[in-house]
Amino acid sequence: MKKLINRTADIVREMLEGTVGLNPGLALLDTENVVIRAGLPAAADRPVALISGGGAGHEPAHAGYVGRGMLTAAVTGEVFTSPSVDAVLAAIRATAGPAGALLIVKNYTGDRLNFGLAGELAAVEGIPTELVVVADDVALAGLVPRDRRRGIAGTVFVHKIAGAAAESGKSLQEVAAIARAAAARIGTMGVALGACTVPAAAKTGFELAEDEIELRLGIHGEKGVERTGIMSADALVDRLVETIVTDMKIGRGARVALLVNGLGATPPMELAIVARRALAVLREKGITVERAWSGDFLTAIEMPGRPARRPGGGAAGGRTPP
Amino acid sequence: MKKLINRTADIVREMLEGTVGLNPGLALLDTENVVIRAGLPAAADRPVALISGGGAGHEPAHAGYVGRGMLTAAVTGEVFTSPSVDAVLAAIRATAGPAGALLIVKNYTGDRLNFGLAGELAAVEGIPTELVVVADDVALAGLVPRDRRRGIAGTVFVHKIAGAAAESGKSLQEVAAIARAAAARIGTMGVALGACTVPAAAKTGFELAEDEIELRLGIHGEKGVERTGIMSADALVDRLVETIVTDMKIGRGARVALLVNGLGATPPMELAIVARRALAVLREKGITVERAWSGDFLTAIEMPGRPARRPGGGAAGGRTPP
Repeated sequence: MKKLINRTADIVREMLEGTVGLNPGLALLDTENVVIRAGLPAAADRPVALISGGGAGHEPAHAGYVGRGMLTAAVTGEVFTSPSVDAVLAAIRATAGPAGALLIVKNYTGDRLNFGLAGELAAVEGIPTELVVVADDVALAGLVPRDRRRGIAGTVFVHKIAGAAAESGKSLQEVAAIARAAAARIGTMGVALGACTVPAAAKTGFELAEDEIELRLGIHGEKGVERTGIMSADALVDRLVETIVTDMKIGRGARVALLVNGLGATPPMELAIVARRALAVLREKGITVERAWSGDFLTAIEMPGRPARRPGGGAAGGRTPP
Repeated sequence: MKKLINRTADIVREMLEGTVGLNPGLALLDTENVVIRAGLPAAADRPVALISGGGAGHEPAHAGYVGRGMLTAAVTGEVFTSPSVDAVLAAIRATAGPAGALLIVKNYTGDRLNFGLAGELAAVEGIPTELVVVADDVALAGLVPRDRRRGIAGTVFVHKIAGAAAESGKSLQEVAAIARAAAARIGTMGVALGACTVPAAAKTGFELAEDEIELRLGIHGEKGVERTGIMSADALVDRLVETIVTDMKIGRGARVALLVNGLGATPPMELAIVARRALAVLREKGITVERAWSGDFLTAIEMPGRPARRPGGGAAGGRTPP
């Protein structure tokens, strides 16, 4: 394992210290791996707090999304490990006022349990909370019911959309409803050209031959549901877009936002080539792309590949879905 | 070679088409691989045009820096290959008005020659031009004279500083002087944990054992000047910072901007750990970091590693050096 790290046990804390050191608008709690917005208004004046997080290894998610109009706090566990209930509760206490806190988690058992329990404990303390679970992975379509799908990179759209709603002063119930509506309209599918190395394991999670790729994978270095031969970028994109569009029932005349996300080690060159095809295919289908991005938004450490993801029906970043 | 591409010969054009497709503020010339700002004012009203570029493979450089307050045009050659004189001339003609054009190149023979010749041809056509050469690589300190050093990722600071100067309406001579002063105060040093694969070569440029790293490397997939054993992130950063600070004669009380740049496949987690140490070491040295960034600003396709770079004396992004 070759990484720019010090002690494996210190990776997460040191990473968060570096992140906060680079960003004067952020602060790190002393006793928990929680990054919050610096200089929040007095508790009584705060809008709904938006809190997300999960295991480390998905950077810039989630601490990179703390800021005005997005997250109020990000809770980080060890690499690919859910943060503790205590850490989530500390984040709620540090950032939520009487308007309460919306907890946004990706659909993994540990995250759902720990954020959920922290939310209940906070409610006992008089801080209202709501939990929104994102399950955007279309890769498991046909294999598991929709509410059992994984949450992957489309989660970033929920941060953005709920963040705009919270910033505009909407109530906790309103922000939660908007976040849930957005989450229900996001479809994502992943592909990897190789594996990533979890520092504590010190080796890659799977091996791929030089002519193989993994399809329908999650964001934790696990294998995909399907292994196939390498194909051209265009052929691969056609397959991803077709799967998402079919699953999400996005038809001619629909308006969407497109996110081409790198999982950590796909160069911008390749992401742009992928984005080019995705834009072209959507145009051919009569689907209007209102906004589009490519880059590393939610990663799996240094995995080469990317999930393509698309919120349906005009749910572009910063705007609330109709 | 496993990449998300179609035909190798189409990589650069398709990448630029994707980049422009994602960014409504950009346009791509029909006949050359030149990305320009869309919607420029009439030629007579244009500020000094800023034009940079070089071989592809350094994304988001250079097309990603086209926009208000930064570059007016980016000229892209094949991967790691200088763009042609014709392409540079097309960029000048498409974007420069009577105020002229500043050409910013990294210190490589092909770029210097082709941008230089295009600038002379443009001058014959009545478009004034100036050429600024960036040679920020401290890795060659003691090996070659300063004007023979390579230009690497610190070049992004020159784009930003010259861009602000041009946007404020300064003359070509003023903008060129500011750009040259900034370039002279930037020091950068690179490290790699592995090589990158040039698509046309279809194999990596060098091999590293699991416990080896390369130091003092450039941005074209070449070997570094020095090979050493893997060390902790902190020890590595100490060495990089010490080398830069010594070479650039940055002493106690100095004000600097810090850029921790990924070469394409270093995850944000590791960049943040590196940034943390760099900030700490500079603080210990009594050097004030006015601005700091980490991310992939100028890459070598998908190389794992990063150069650290620091413009001396308050030359932070967006501000002109004193």
